[in-house]
Formats: sequence, structure tokens, C-alpha cells
Amino acid sequence: MHDTPAPFTEEDYAARMSRAARDAAETGLAGLLITPGPDLTWLCGHRPAATTERLTLLVLTPGSEPRLLVPSLERPDAESAPGADAVRISDWRDGQDPYAAATGLLLPNGRYAVSDTTWALHLLGLQEALPLTTYRPLTVVLPLLRAMKDDHEVARLASAAAAADAVYEEILAVRFTGRRESEVAADLARLLREQSHSQVVTVVSSGRNSANPHHRTGERTLKKGDMVILDFGGLKDGYASHLTRTVHVGEPTEEERTVHDLVRTAQQAAFEAVAPGATCQEVDRGARRWIEDAGYGEYAAERTGHGIGVTAHEPPHLTGGEETFLAPGMCFSIGSGVYLPGRFGVRVEDVVTCTADGGRRLNATDRGMAIVA
Amino acid sequence: MHDTPAPFTEEDYAARMSRAARDAAETGLAGLLITPGPDLTWLCGHRPAATTERLTLLVLTPGSEPRLLVPSLERPDAESAPGADAVRISDWRDGQDPYAAATGLLLPNGRYAVSDTTWALHLLGLQEALPLTTYRPLTVVLPLLRAMKDDHEVARLASAAAAADAVYEEILAVRFTGRRESEVAADLARLLREQSHSQVVTVVSSGRNSANPHHRTGERTLKKGDMVILDFGGLKDGYASHLTRTVHVGEPTEEERTVHDLVRTAQQAAFEAVAPGATCQEVDRGARRWIEDAGYGEYAAERTGHGIGVTAHEPPHLTGGEETFLAPGMCFSIGSGVYLPGRFGVRVEDVVTCTADGGRRLNATDRGMAIVA
Repeated sequence: MHDTPAPFTEEDYAARMSRAARDAAETGLAGLLITPGPDLTWLCGHRPAATTERLTLLVLTPGSEPRLLVPSLERPDAESAPGADAVRISDWRDGQDPYAAATGLLLPNGRYAVSDTTWALHLLGLQEALPLTTYRPLTVVLPLLRAMKDDHEVARLASAAAAADAVYEEILAVRFTGRRESEVAADLARLLREQSHSQVVTVVSSGRNSANPHHRTGERTLKKGDMVILDFGGLKDGYASHLTRTVHVGEPTEEERTVHDLVRTAQQAAFEAVAPGATCQEVDRGARRWIEDAGYGEYAAERTGHGIGVTAHEPPHLTGGEETFLAPGMCFSIGSGVYLPGRFGVRVEDVVTCTADGGRRLNATDRGMAIVA
Repeated sequence: MHDTPAPFTEEDYAARMSRAARDAAETGLAGLLITPGPDLTWLCGHRPAATTERLTLLVLTPGSEPRLLVPSLERPDAESAPGADAVRISDWRDGQDPYAAATGLLLPNGRYAVSDTTWALHLLGLQEALPLTTYRPLTVVLPLLRAMKDDHEVARLASAAAAADAVYEEILAVRFTGRRESEVAADLARLLREQSHSQVVTVVSSGRNSANPHHRTGERTLKKGDMVILDFGGLKDGYASHLTRTVHVGEPTEEERTVHDLVRTAQQAAFEAVAPGATCQEVDRGARRWIEDAGYGEYAAERTGHGIGVTAHEPPHLTGGEETFLAPGMCFSIGSGVYLPGRFGVRVEDVVTCTADGGRRLNATDRGMAIVA
């Protein structure tokens, strides 16, 4: 068993909900409506066993106490959530109309942000119960709700990153030649679980498959001369890891070395562009310029990175055209990649946090092209 | 490896989509809008790797060919789905507006049924792109979309039920005394997987816990004298199993025997009430009357059963007040239960299909109170 970090406190949850309500007010919203998923768990600590047709709804209204409406069957669960004391819980019973129960918590003509993943069943129920309310997807109006992490959250991401580093160092010792992508991916998954990870995702792209950035692990057998992209992560103590390294089976060619060096240089340039006040697209440009200057522009990866936290992919998106400003506490992946169709690809990606002084890498393992057997 | 049944054909999928569109027309709908989930897979065979912020939408319009809109990245997957030849596929690319792409497939003022689980993000996108369209939750307007199974589907449910029967017969040989609920539940899960099941759900409720119909498997240690409810199932070849039996550790008391006999009698009465044209609540009454007459009415289970197919719980619901008529091809669980708070509970539940001649049990294993060690 690993050391579980101290749980978040009632004050942590109260602070998150209060900040979210303030952000809503500043955006001209009457409030936030949150259904089960990462936002609900992050805001109030409640994680229903399943997302179902029974409405569970957290209502955050500027200037009012947070309200959580739950099915009566799930009330005991909700009351035992770590943030339960920071919300006022009410319930509805089977046979009652949950949307009627929700109307007492909403302004009849309010404009609300609603979780992207809220079921249509529930949104239509609210729209019918309160025809003058209007709704916007949460990530459209408040994309950065969970983007700024506090020190405890950064510590959890750093711990997840260290675990992923350890997995990478262990995988270098396994045999690659003669085994299938799916077998190496299973090794990665097992190592991640040994490193206290859950919800593991592992992708192994070898040889020509490495040139396809959307490759799914398959049954190709690895052989000498293959580039192999290892892209993996999962959740540890509720926070995500995501690490990508490209290794080579046996000795690489000169061109393979050149492309790998280029990708690492580009990734370093993106990392160095991280600073409070820099925009996402400036970081993306930092990587892309190097690749373009080297003549590989048309083969560059589409995106440099993405936010990471209680989910593996979240705003901010480090892509061209994205003008969001970086701020201290934001955590995201920084990657660079070159994909030569039909031949090979290289990607290197780390998790980085933005501090007042610039970027800090949470992954520390070597970014060089390891030679595997 | 078990023998995989013959896959459903393009004709099977075409027939399902055509029937769904006809049902939509009869309900006064302009069509059905289906996003990833069991309905999408059942209708056209497409099962995206994940449900994401990228819109995937099946549009079924009476009198028109089925249309499937997918993200361009997922087009290869969609084109390899077993029902792909029965739909016309189009795609949208990152950077394009998927809702604008969808408008070409919808009537600008149509009234549509939409999957219950469609993300609010997508529903709001459609509502904004086509402000005069209106939407109703699919299970509200067409609850029986998947309820009538064809012979191939019933065969898969029968195969899943036979596998669950085999698991039950095997679990009787394991040790119960001195082991925890979680350990017996893990045994059930392992046996189900050995019987080619995926997405396994197992609940073990022992002693006083058996009196709580919402108990989740815990760490209680089983001991002589315990009633133990075993409630388990999963998916086999895409179709669900669900079996509940109540066993006893060592010799039961006379009252325990009496209650178990009563539950079995009530379950048999419900089974005998199954016939085309009977209503769901008549079947429910069939079980409940016996329990009430025996003086246990206030301790009776809330519901007799639920539909089963590509999901483990779906309409029709066999409960009081539910006036849906049974029809040949419907498949559902039939259960009965008595829960004596603080003492013990008993539940017995099988999967049954409605034929022209009445109910046919798909589970064949003994319903008596087995004595375990």
C-alpha cells in the first residue's frame, strides 16, 4: 500500500465552491448546475456510485450557500462525502418529480452554466420545469473552473508524475523484440497499477504505427529497428498522470536520431515558453517553430498539450489559436511530436506546472531516446 | 474461448432502425437523435471507444435513410461497424462546428426524441443551431424502443442466463463461513468472467445486511445462521444476465424457511401472470398479493422486475402503477422479495421472456434455499 495523502478538508471544498460561484457571477451567470462527474467530486467531494436517470444536482449561486439535491437513496452517501459539511443537502424520493424539487433552488429566469455531461433527460426536465431559465455548457463559459491548482493539488499531480516516471524506468528493462504492442501495453498497465494507479490508459505505437498519432495499441509484433512511442497514464489518489516517451528497438538510424533530437529540442522550447501571462498558443508556437525551421512543419503534432488534474484531459488546451493566458497553479502536459507517414513518429510529453517563475516539470525522467532490447 | 454467436447482420440493423423510425412517426416525432450508448450500438452496431465532447449522432427520420454523423477521426471505426452498410455516414473535422453539420440532417422545426444520456453540451449545441426544434427524452416518448427482442436476441439472453445459472451452481461449493461478503462477491465475479461475462456486477448481502435491499457488498464476515442474498450478472456477447438467489449458511430456522417459501411462491405467481396483453402492474400484483396475504405486505420488495437486453436495467418496469402491456419478445426479470428490517431478507429473481403462450424462464437453476457451508 502507498501512503495516501491527507484528504481534502471541508475548507478546501468550501473555498472551491465559493470561488466557482464568484467566477459565475463575474461571467454574468445566475449560478452553476453540476451533475455527477469530475466537477461534482472536485467541488464538494461527492462521487455517486453511478451516473443514472436519478437526478443529483449541485447548485452554486453567488451569495447563497451551496445546495446539493440527491435521490433519497443516495443521501447517506452524499452525507459521508468529505465536503458534505460545506453544502446543504436535500433529497427527493422515487415517485416525486426531481425537477420540481430543483426549481426551489433555481431562479425562474436565471442563466445557468450546466455540466457538459449532464444528461439530456435532466436538462430537458429542468427546461420544462422552468421554461424561462437558459443554459450554457460549463466548459464554454467557465473553461478554467478547475484549471488553477492549489499546492495540495500540485503535490498530488507531482506524485502521480513520479509514479509514471518510475513506470517508464521499469519498462525499459522488459523485452520488446518479438512481443506484441498489446503485450507491452499490458506491462505498462500492470506497472502503473503497481504504482497505485487506477483507470489506466496505455498506448504502444511501434514501427509504422508510430507515424499515426491516433494509433490504438494493436497486435503488431515489435522488431529490431522499430521506433516505439509509449504513451501512458492514469489516476493516482484522484489526480492524473500522463507521460510520453519514444524509445528505439536496437540502434537507430541517423535520421531517427535527428528527428528525436528535434522533438526534444522543440519540447524544451515549449517548456521554456511557459510563464504567467504567456498565452497557450505562444507555448504551442514555441515548439512548432523549431519543427518548422527544421523543415518538418507539415509533420508536426497538432497540439502541444492539454490541462491535467482530476481528469487526464481538460482546459487549457495548448494549441494554435488558443489565447488563454497561463497563470500560476495551472498544470498541463507539454509535448512535441513529428509523424512521418508510413515511416515513423516521435513524441515526448511531460506534465508541467506554471509557477510565478515559469514552468516546473513534474516529470523528471530522461527524455532521451532509450535503446531497448 | 466460448462459441461466439453469429454477429447481427446489416439486415438486422436496418430492420431495427426502420422499426424505430416508424415508431417515431406513430408518436408524432420528426425523428430520433441517438448519441453513443446502448441505443446507438443496438440500432447501427457502432460503438465508439469513448463518449466524448466530439459529437457522434445517428439521425433516424421516417421515410429517409438513416444518417450517422461522426468526428472524422472516428470515421474508420464507424465504417467498420457491423451495421455500417445500413446507414449513410458523414463526418465533421476538428475546427468545424458539428452542430452546423447536424443541421443539414434535421428539420428546422422538428420535434425529436433524443437519447436520455446525450450530453447537455450537445443538446445545447443543437438547440442553438436550430432554435425552433424541440426535444423529448427518448425513454419518455419511446420507452419500449428496444423492448421487443427478436429470436436471435432472446437466444443471447438465454445463453447469458445459462451462464449465470452455471455460476450459481458453482458458488454453492465454495466456503461461506468465515469469509467476507467481498470475498464471495469476488468469487462470483471470477466465475462470471470464466463464463465469458464482462462488466460484471455482484452483490452479496449477508445476515442483517440481507434485510437492506440497497446493501452494497461489504466486509462483514459470514457465519452460521446467515441468510445470504446473491445478486449478480453482467454482459455475455453483448446481452445481460441477472440472477438472484438466497442461500443459508447452515440450517435455517422455521421462520426463515417460511419466508423463503413465501418468496418463491410469490415469484411463481408473478411468473404465471406473464402473458401477452397483461400489464406490468398485474405481474407485480401477482407477486405482491401472496406476500400481503401472508401478512408481510409492508416488507415486500418495491419492484418485481425490469426489462433486460443490451443493458441490465431497461423498460418495461414491472412495478405498481405501470400499465405497459406485455408483448411477445419482451424480456425482463421477475423477482420477489421480503426484507425484515434488522433481521434478514430473501429475494429470488429470474430472467423471463414473454411468448405468445405466456412466460418462459431463461434461468433454469433451482430456486430453493440451498444450504451452504
